[in-house]
This record gives sequence, structure tokens and C-alpha cells, in this order.
Amino acid sequence: MEKNNKSITSRDVDFAKWYNDIIREADLVDYSSVKGSMIIRPYGYAIWENMQSVLDKMFKDTNHENVQMPMFIPESLFNIEKEHVEGFAPEVAWVTHGGTEKLEERMIVRPTSEVLFCDHFKKIIKSYRDLPLLYNQWCTIVRWEKTTRPFLRSREILWQEGHTMHATEMDAREETLRMLNVYETFQRDYLAIPVITGLKTPKEKFAGAEETYTVEAMMYDGLALQNGTSHYFGQGFAKAFDIKFLNSENQLESPYQTSWGVTTRMIGGLIMVHSDDLGLVLPPNIAPTKVMIIPIGDTKEVNELSAKLKEKFALENTTCLIDSSDKSPGFKFALAEVKGYPIRIEVGKRDLKNNEVTIVRRDTLEKMKVAANIEEITKTSNELLNKIQDNLLNKAILRRDNMLYEAKTYEEFKSIVTTKPGFVLTSWCGDDACEAKVREELGIKSRCIPLNDEKTTEPCTICGKEGKYKLYFGKQY
Amino acid sequence: MEKNNKSITSRDVDFAKWYNDIIREADLVDYSSVKGSMIIRPYGYAIWENMQSVLDKMFKDTNHENVQMPMFIPESLFNIEKEHVEGFAPEVAWVTHGGTEKLEERMIVRPTSEVLFCDHFKKIIKSYRDLPLLYNQWCTIVRWEKTTRPFLRSREILWQEGHTMHATEMDAREETLRMLNVYETFQRDYLAIPVITGLKTPKEKFAGAEETYTVEAMMYDGLALQNGTSHYFGQGFAKAFDIKFLNSENQLESPYQTSWGVTTRMIGGLIMVHSDDLGLVLPPNIAPTKVMIIPIGDTKEVNELSAKLKEKFALENTTCLIDSSDKSPGFKFALAEVKGYPIRIEVGKRDLKNNEVTIVRRDTLEKMKVAANIEEITKTSNELLNKIQDNLLNKAILRRDNMLYEAKTYEEFKSIVTTKPGFVLTSWCGDDACEAKVREELGIKSRCIPLNDEKTTEPCTICGKEGKYKLYFGKQY
Repeated sequence: MEKNNKSITSRDVDFAKWYNDIIREADLVDYSSVKGSMIIRPYGYAIWENMQSVLDKMFKDTNHENVQMPMFIPESLFNIEKEHVEGFAPEVAWVTHGGTEKLEERMIVRPTSEVLFCDHFKKIIKSYRDLPLLYNQWCTIVRWEKTTRPFLRSREILWQEGHTMHATEMDAREETLRMLNVYETFQRDYLAIPVITGLKTPKEKFAGAEETYTVEAMMYDGLALQNGTSHYFGQGFAKAFDIKFLNSENQLESPYQTSWGVTTRMIGGLIMVHSDDLGLVLPPNIAPTKVMIIPIGDTKEVNELSAKLKEKFALENTTCLIDSSDKSPGFKFALAEVKGYPIRIEVGKRDLKNNEVTIVRRDTLEKMKVAANIEEITKTSNELLNKIQDNLLNKAILRRDNMLYEAKTYEEFKSIVTTKPGFVLTSWCGDDACEAKVREELGIKSRCIPLNDEKTTEPCTICGKEGKYKLYFGKQY
Repeated sequence: MEKNNKSITSRDVDFAKWYNDIIREADLVDYSSVKGSMIIRPYGYAIWENMQSVLDKMFKDTNHENVQMPMFIPESLFNIEKEHVEGFAPEVAWVTHGGTEKLEERMIVRPTSEVLFCDHFKKIIKSYRDLPLLYNQWCTIVRWEKTTRPFLRSREILWQEGHTMHATEMDAREETLRMLNVYETFQRDYLAIPVITGLKTPKEKFAGAEETYTVEAMMYDGLALQNGTSHYFGQGFAKAFDIKFLNSENQLESPYQTSWGVTTRMIGGLIMVHSDDLGLVLPPNIAPTKVMIIPIGDTKEVNELSAKLKEKFALENTTCLIDSSDKSPGFKFALAEVKGYPIRIEVGKRDLKNNEVTIVRRDTLEKMKVAANIEEITKTSNELLNKIQDNLLNKAILRRDNMLYEAKTYEEFKSIVTTKPGFVLTSWCGDDACEAKVREELGIKSRCIPLNDEKTTEPCTICGKEGKYKLYFGKQY
């Protein structure tokens, strides 16, 4: 890239610093006086609102309803499912006093809400006619992380958590995969992020789940971001909470459960997949502002065309703003690049003399002259927005695929892991010990057993015994 | 009313019990194992989503942006503004431990976020060019109430809180009233709730505010519900937090601040203004489902017309569902009444032989036969929805106005207060002591000095000295 932005470290020089620079310069986040918690500023929050709005529609289209549970969990309720408690206890915030009084029973701020939903389900599920119950909740959760990074790991997390109960195992398993598919589709079609979907190993699954499915995205630097999970719980929680329903054969039975969630972490993924040394690059389908008009020269013609363009874009539901601040055009161009507006339209006095305007696409920085005609400009822009969306996805797929490796032997595996960023596909015997060995010797974790491509005929890459599953390994955020 | 519902206590017999019955029977809320916190069930949450969606648009149309602040406030940050701390300290929840470790500094769960916003504003406000800053946040707050009632008073409250900073006192004062007006308009046009807008007395204002404006709604039983507030802070918080900006004369100055909020309490207000002994009554403009179609008799004609009607309503953005459960028609009618769907359409086998359907409006329970023609039915229904919205508002205004009194002497005041539900307008000298006397002797608080009708020529109703302001008194929730 020929250009650069002095406030932003190059991503090839220091990726972590680059990430923080982008977040600061694009006004996504501010650090707060509350250790480990971030302030999501208007531009960052607008991205989250767009994510919420699309996902909420996808959830409702699949018959889910939103509810709101309490944010506190009394200790005794939290303690009901053992594996779950052990998984979460080290990272919960404890409320011990209300006003000036010590509480009779201390409470945690929800790190996830399985137990709250189960407590409610127990009261409202009586018969198979009450099932399925398909609930979702948008809320904030708290996990007391030691080290935090904006969007990627923080003490407070904005997310959605789906919680569903079903009359049969098959229904619950279908739901688990249906919502995994919703996440995959959303990330591909809106975030332009290709993901690898798969099953977590027993060691990496959610505390209390029978199976955890994941969507694993690969960042620009080859590291993984677990960008959403969908859990099949079987009857574990239902039995621990003594939830029973009369099934269609009039027998008492425990229902089958799922939960699934995505968080503001997806914003971190958006940044680390698409953005560059000039700033944010946002896929048009999720960008709060798709088109930024920059008037150059304060003439009647410039201002009139700018205003009319904005009106026309509004009619077509293409979000558009005019940067009419008193800054210089150069400053405005750089700002538009930092903010990652997919398209900027430069409406200039001089261009207008040739009856032209300049359209610049953010993804490639390519400039094009277009006739200064409202129909022409909006038509070209809307086509360009589709092209940019496709281009970003294709670029991300290409880059990801270039960093996918396969290792047949442990030597080969070690050599790839220690020299190349990315994910490595192995053959795995299914034994925890092999995963533990890799973690200990090479410091990396398994990502997932890829969906629809689980089986292997090769021996285990790690121990050489009979292989059972394909398994991706890779460093993660 | 001739009909009744056995599960619902009559509101004239026991209003408090009636309220709880409505909430339970209409599936709005469930009680949780978390003391003082409620579970908002899908139907209740759908009402909140509609409120959010309308208000969020009104906020954005007045140039406000959404942000997200941390939910915790470190003790030292909370302690910065004295009056504020004293007001809130008795009712905050304290987080003292993270994981297994005691925190170095304990934190409260936000009861409101003025101090968090100020902490952020201090960093981002430098010049008058940065102003106004017009922020809003949708979130949950916590106030450690001793006695709680669903929607009206609970430990966790879903709300929005606007926080704005301005370069001049005039701008901030205008904003305070602009948002009060947004609340008034929203409650009138969507909730069909007429409110009295006014200024709280110094004794009743928000802890830390210079002035608190309020929208006061009157419930069916004559009690008041403070249904939204808008505060003018002046420079109080800004000075306490040392926030300064270079004004247009290049002088350092503290900005002028406002905040304003409404909560899920509005759902309680909706219930207590409009509902009756048969269940919920929802104004069409806020109802999650405006039309419920009830097929009677499982014939091809009945099912086809029902399905086509639903399609047509969907095209017109009139939310509509079909109750196709295997319950009896009588049960479905009663359920439709409990849930408060503004209109139900009974599509019956027998009616169809006469080429008719029956439309029943929920507010008056009036039935009408309409030709079984899709255009005719949807046209009639949509007109009826407007009529119902108007009727509910007019009924609420009439009832409210019938319970507004005026007292010239303290004897007259006492007599009204002790015998009649409602609000009583007095003339007030402006002295805290007179308010305190009323509270002590009669157990009621002042509501507000009515906006645009502040001045009085009468002597103070309470002490007989020179009157300064008109002032409403009334019992509240």
C-alpha cells in the first residue's frame, strides 16, 4: 500500500498495536475508569445495532421469542449443575451487599444464563404441548477476566443467548445445528467473514454441555477467533433442575436443551479480517454509513448535488451522510478511510465543471469518475456496494485458505505450527492426552472437528495410533 | 361489565390483586428465584420492544446517538458528586469480589450512569465544536428496593437514559424540555396515556439535578405514576468532574448537562390505565399483535379466509396472528380478551354461510358483522384500530379529568385527599415545610408544578402565606 496514516501502526509491523490504533482512531471504543470494561462509542455501537437488527430478524424468522431474565444468580441456584459451576466459578463477579446490608445469600452477576432459564422452564413446562420453547435474550454478561482487550476479551460482554427446550433429542440436535447455520450465514453474508464450522473436543466444550459447535474465523494474522457457539445439552441441566414434561405417550420425561450465543467480539473479528493500515474497512451490509459524500468547494452546485444525492440514497435505504465540517478535503478523505465507509463520493467544484464526480471505494481505494447525474451516481454506487461486499468475502476466503494446512506426522505438524500462521488440520485418535500434549509442547489448542468432514482414514498425527476424527489446531484470541 | 373472568379479581374490589392477576394471566411476567427481580416473558417483552423501537426512532430523529457504558461504577467515581451519592447510596448493590479475589476497590452496579458519562465526557469534550453531545443508552440498572412490584418497582429495571452536554445553559434547558415533550408525545400517541407535565419541587427532584421535569400519569384508581423524568443539571456534575471546554470566545468553561429516562414501568402504567376485569387492554399503536383471527369450525372456507386475511394484514404492516390451537372457541375468545388484542376476528363456519365474519373490539367488547370479503374486513379493521386508539385516550383523559381537584384551603385539601382518589391542585408558597407537613399529616407527596401554568394569585393552600406556584399533590405508586 502506497499510502499510510501516521496515527495507525502498520498491521504487518505490530498487529496488536495496529488493532488498538484502529479502535481508537475510528472512535469505536474508549477506555473507562472501570478496569476491564470498555465504553462502546456511537460508531462502534451503531455496528452492534446493525448486527442485532439482522440477527434478531433471523431469530424471529426461526420462531424464537425474546425474553428478559434477572442479571443476578443466587449462589444456591448457580451451584445446581456441577460441571457448569466448576467451569464458571473462577471468573464471576460477586454481589455481597445491598445498600448498607450484607445479603443473606450472595449472588453472582450472570456469566451466562442457563440456570436462570432452567429455573423458569421448570415452572412453565408441563406437557409436550408447551414444547418447543424457543427463547432468546439480548443482554450484558460479566466474566472476571484478568487480561482484557476491547471487543475480544472484556469483563462485560454484550451478547445474545438463545435458550431452547425440546420434546425430543432429535429436535434439540436440529436446533443446535440450525442456529450454528444462522451464525455461519450471518457472518458470511453480512460480515463477509468465512468461518469453519465444527464440533469442539470434549476438552474445549462449554461447561455443562454435551456438545459444543463453533464457528471459527481466521484473522488477518492467521489466529483464530471463536466467533459464536451453539451447545447441545441433552437432558443434563433438565435433570439437575428436575424439569419434567408429560410426553405424547403420557410419560414423564426430561426435555432436551440447547443454548447458543454471539457477542460484540464479532466487531473485533470484523476489524481483524478486513481492515488495513489506513483504518477500518467495513462490509457494506453491516456498515452504519454506506456512503459518505464529501463536498469540495462551497458552491451552490456542489451543495445542491450533495443534498440531492443524500435524499436519493435515503429513498433507496442506502445510509448516507454528508461531511460538511469545515475541515480540509484531504482531512475528510483520510477520516473517511479511517472510518471505513465502503464508498465516498467526492463532489468537487472542478469535477463538476467536467460534469463529473469521483467515487472512491474503500476496499481497493480505486477511484472512478462518474457523470454528475443523480441516477447514474446512485446506480453506480449501489452496484459498487455489492461488489465491495463480494470482494471482501472473496479476499477473506482466499487469505484464509492460504493459511489452512494439513499435517500427516507430528514432525510436520510441529514444523508448520512453529513457522506458519494459520490452522492445521490433523488426524486425531480422540484422546484428550494428544490435545494436552500439543497444548503443552506447542502452546496451541484445538479449534474444531470440521462439520460434514469429521472422519479420517489416517493415523493420529500426534500419537500415531488409529485416527478417528479430523481436527483443526490453531492459536486463538 | 356483565362478563367476568374467574382468574382475575375485579379491579373495583382489590386493585392491587387485580394488577397481579392481569400480569400473571396475560403471561407478561414470571416471578424468579432472584428476590426482587422479575422475568419478563415474551408477551411482556414484545411490548417493551415496541416501546423501544418507537422511542429509539424519536431519539434518533432528534439527533441522539446510542452508546454503551460499563455497568459497574468504582466507589471513588461514584463518590465524586455529593448530593448524588447521598441520594443513591442507600439503594445500590455492591460487587466486592471477582472470582476468588477480594477487589481492591469495591464497585456498585449502576443505579443510573451520570458519573460514568461524566468520566467519559471529560476525555472527549475539548471545544465548543464537540458540543452538543447527545447520547442515549438502553440498559439495565439496579436499585436495591425493599418492596417490589412487577414493572412498578423492582431491583432490576430496564430503561433508557439520555445524557447530553451543551455549550450554553439555554441549549441544555431546551434539550431538557424537548425530551420531556418526546415522552409526553410518545405516551399520548402510542400508549394512549394523557400525562401532566411539570416541574418537581426541590424536595422531589433527582439527586444532583438543578431541576427535574416529570410526566405524571393517573392510574384507574386515581394514584399517580411518575412515568418519565428529564433533568437539567446545570454545571454541577461538570464542575465536580472538572469537565471544561474552550467556548467560542476562547474561554475555558464548564458545559451544561441534561439527563432523561423512561423505564419498563410504562408497561405497569399501560395496564393500570386501560385494562379491565377481563384482562389486558392494549392500545393498537403499542400492541404486539393488533388482530387475532379465531377460526371456528375446521372447514376449508374458514381456514382459507383466515390465512388470506393474515397475509393481507401482513402486507399492510398490521400485526396479525391466527389462533389455530385445538382449544374451544369460547376459550379462545376469553384468552384474546385476557391478552388484550385490540381486535379479534371470528371466522366461523355458520357466519360464512351468511357470507359474514364477526369483528369484536377489545376496548368496548362491541361486536359487528362484516361481509366476508378480504378488502372489507381489513379496511374495517384498520379503521377500527384507529378508533380504538382514540377511544382509549379519550376515556383516559375523561377519567383523569374527573379526578383532578383544586383546593383553596387546607381544610378543603384535607377533605378531598381523605375522601377522593386523584390529584389535587394547590397554591404553594414554595416552602419545603408546607410539603413536609402534607406528607406527615396526610401521607401524600407533591406531584409537580404544572408546566405553562406555574403561577398562582391565591395564598398558599397549606400555610396561608403568599402563594408562588400551583402545585399538584397525589398519592403515587
